[in-house]
Amino acid sequence: MDNINIDIQDSLTKMCVLARKAVSSLANLSNDKKNDLLMRVAGSIEKNRQNIREANNKDIECAEKLGKNKAFIDRLTLNDKRIDGMIKGLKEVVNLSDPVGRTLKDWERPNGLMISKVSVPIGVVGIIFESRPNVTCEAASLCFKSGNVVILKGGKESFESNLAIERCFEEALTSVGLPINCVKLVPFREREATSLLLKMDQFIDLIIPRGGESLIRFVSMNSSIPVIKHYKGVCHIYVDASADFDVAKKIILNAKIQRPAVCNAVETLLVHKDVARKFMPKIVKSLRNEDVTIRGCMKTLDMVDEEISLATDDDWYTEYLDLIISIKVVDSIDDAIAHITKYGSKHSDAIVSDDIASLDKFQKEVDSSAVFVNCSTRFNDGGEFGFGAEIGISTDKIHARGPMGLEELNIYKYIVKGSGQIRE
Amino acid sequence: MDNINIDIQDSLTKMCVLARKAVSSLANLSNDKKNDLLMRVAGSIEKNRQNIREANNKDIECAEKLGKNKAFIDRLTLNDKRIDGMIKGLKEVVNLSDPVGRTLKDWERPNGLMISKVSVPIGVVGIIFESRPNVTCEAASLCFKSGNVVILKGGKESFESNLAIERCFEEALTSVGLPINCVKLVPFREREATSLLLKMDQFIDLIIPRGGESLIRFVSMNSSIPVIKHYKGVCHIYVDASADFDVAKKIILNAKIQRPAVCNAVETLLVHKDVARKFMPKIVKSLRNEDVTIRGCMKTLDMVDEEISLATDDDWYTEYLDLIISIKVVDSIDDAIAHITKYGSKHSDAIVSDDIASLDKFQKEVDSSAVFVNCSTRFNDGGEFGFGAEIGISTDKIHARGPMGLEELNIYKYIVKGSGQIRE
Repeated sequence: MDNINIDIQDSLTKMCVLARKAVSSLANLSNDKKNDLLMRVAGSIEKNRQNIREANNKDIECAEKLGKNKAFIDRLTLNDKRIDGMIKGLKEVVNLSDPVGRTLKDWERPNGLMISKVSVPIGVVGIIFESRPNVTCEAASLCFKSGNVVILKGGKESFESNLAIERCFEEALTSVGLPINCVKLVPFREREATSLLLKMDQFIDLIIPRGGESLIRFVSMNSSIPVIKHYKGVCHIYVDASADFDVAKKIILNAKIQRPAVCNAVETLLVHKDVARKFMPKIVKSLRNEDVTIRGCMKTLDMVDEEISLATDDDWYTEYLDLIISIKVVDSIDDAIAHITKYGSKHSDAIVSDDIASLDKFQKEVDSSAVFVNCSTRFNDGGEFGFGAEIGISTDKIHARGPMGLEELNIYKYIVKGSGQIRE
Repeated sequence: MDNINIDIQDSLTKMCVLARKAVSSLANLSNDKKNDLLMRVAGSIEKNRQNIREANNKDIECAEKLGKNKAFIDRLTLNDKRIDGMIKGLKEVVNLSDPVGRTLKDWERPNGLMISKVSVPIGVVGIIFESRPNVTCEAASLCFKSGNVVILKGGKESFESNLAIERCFEEALTSVGLPINCVKLVPFREREATSLLLKMDQFIDLIIPRGGESLIRFVSMNSSIPVIKHYKGVCHIYVDASADFDVAKKIILNAKIQRPAVCNAVETLLVHKDVARKFMPKIVKSLRNEDVTIRGCMKTLDMVDEEISLATDDDWYTEYLDLIISIKVVDSIDDAIAHITKYGSKHSDAIVSDDIASLDKFQKEVDSSAVFVNCSTRFNDGGEFGFGAEIGISTDKIHARGPMGLEELNIYKYIVKGSGQIRE
């Protein structure tokens, strides 16, 4: 390791030690105290609006100099509306119930032991994210409310903005006498800081990466800390032979068009061969009317008048995040499920059908975080599920799948009460 | 990579592809069919008892040549009693309820969507373990019953024994027409095979290492697959100022002596200063009567007549797994909790007290997988919790803590049923 990295490592280690120390201050904090803190953060953001905008302007200038594109600058920008959004978000988190200390289960053993399973915070959570600085506020508030200490490592481009937001948490924490280490930002722009952070398994209990595929891959390949990936969504809608065409059309358009750049938007449409010849021209026309680019299988191409390009094998694996959709005719529901199993990302997949056997089969056999029956994949979302807010949508197979809200930012411990029992 | 490693990698990749393919055969298998298979494995083990013993003898001879110690040879040995134990274990797993397909929660949203959270298998689970060959049978049966495909990598010393047990699963799987890839052993002795397996994140959903500290550390440092660690147990018993001495003595002796070589045995005793002078001579005498070696803090040394050695800072971190205990006098319950937080391993910690405020504080502030109140730490066990069987005791902070039984070998998916709902 060179000198800079040794400095970063020293500084990160100190930060992690202090974070670990803060765990006990936070784990059993009452809901009222947590809410009071979050309201103070909201107040501090309001008061420091100008500072936040100035810090954000520095980031934007820097990004412009580096020739970043418009979409990037947009994600980076904290205008008044977004700052209002942060404040509103904090107030929403205040209104959510405290996830800590719920009795999830309790039972008595024949020897008289009383066992209860109680929800507790995870401990220290590391959030690694990219350019959107409002994530700092959102992620920090959810971690705080769920009783977790949080260490945030944002993208280097939003460094100044993140610092300005961290200062609001610091101000609020100090004002109530809580350690400022409950919410800390990694004070380095370097990617090396991320690599080093991912090895701090002694101090950090969980890493949640939020961002593009390459970030998430980097994190999961380099972390010695457990990671819950919020990976890509290659989401499917399968139109069964028994589907109501109007329902199918409404759902497909919603899932593709309402917000194409998000992970629960649909990317691939699978149509049962028995209805393909009738349904395909209608849906292709509707999608084209909405400026959706279509990549179809050979059969799809044969069925429509519009000139559409042939989908490659790569297309089936692709999360377009754009007004593009790939379409395939399948021979059966088994074919559809096999396609989803092979090319999907276990995120959100839907069936449109009126046939009970098909619905049952699809629900059982499609292994996605959420399976949608006659409704849009766009509902895979913490807010839509009624969780109030989410830290992201997990595509992993352990701990949490789908929307991760406050409850999913908790784990449990067992409390076993006896009166002198010993093991025979 | 050299040629041998390329061969291993090719072979492992093929194995993993086939394992992934087997997932769908297993995920929705009925409880009856799973139980039938497990009974057939039991039959096959009975039938192949002689082959298993011969294979085991080869392993033992080899280990003896390598000069392995008696304890090692004992763990490796499959005598008739242990083979009976494997058969009995299979039958016990048959009697457990099917964890798959439980509705964990369901609710309706204002827009009419019906959401249910349903338990499903994790998928492909990799178990990495050391010398005890009976783990092969135990882990495979639990994974199978919970609907998971399992890939097992045992210690090189038990290679032949593990193969012989795998053959029994193979025979049973073939007899009912299930893919043999539902239960597979890595056919290499090399440790490189473990390193390569840990990078198969495309195919394997979860790794569970079972064994000593160095194995678990190796696995968690080298895995790109999520790992649930079953780590060491540096377990404490805290004797509060209000403790009933008889209860305390009974619990301490049980937790130290009943089976010292296991993770939920006690390693450190913390005694409140107000009762130390009275309690310490009694407990030290009792422990010495049971041949327990004692390492005490300076105050402990002052309080007893017996010659006991001074505990070093290292002692407080040590999982002795032996008839050794370290003892410390603490000034307060806060001191005790601080000691547990610093030196403990979040496994099993107990308080002996009759004071409600102390009990409440200890339960809340000690962050261990299980906190024991007036009972032995030895109860941190799947069987004792009523789970029937366990794959191990998790010391991690995500997915599962404490005993991991069949339910903890499952995760969930959401099923969202609508009638054409779209997102506005």
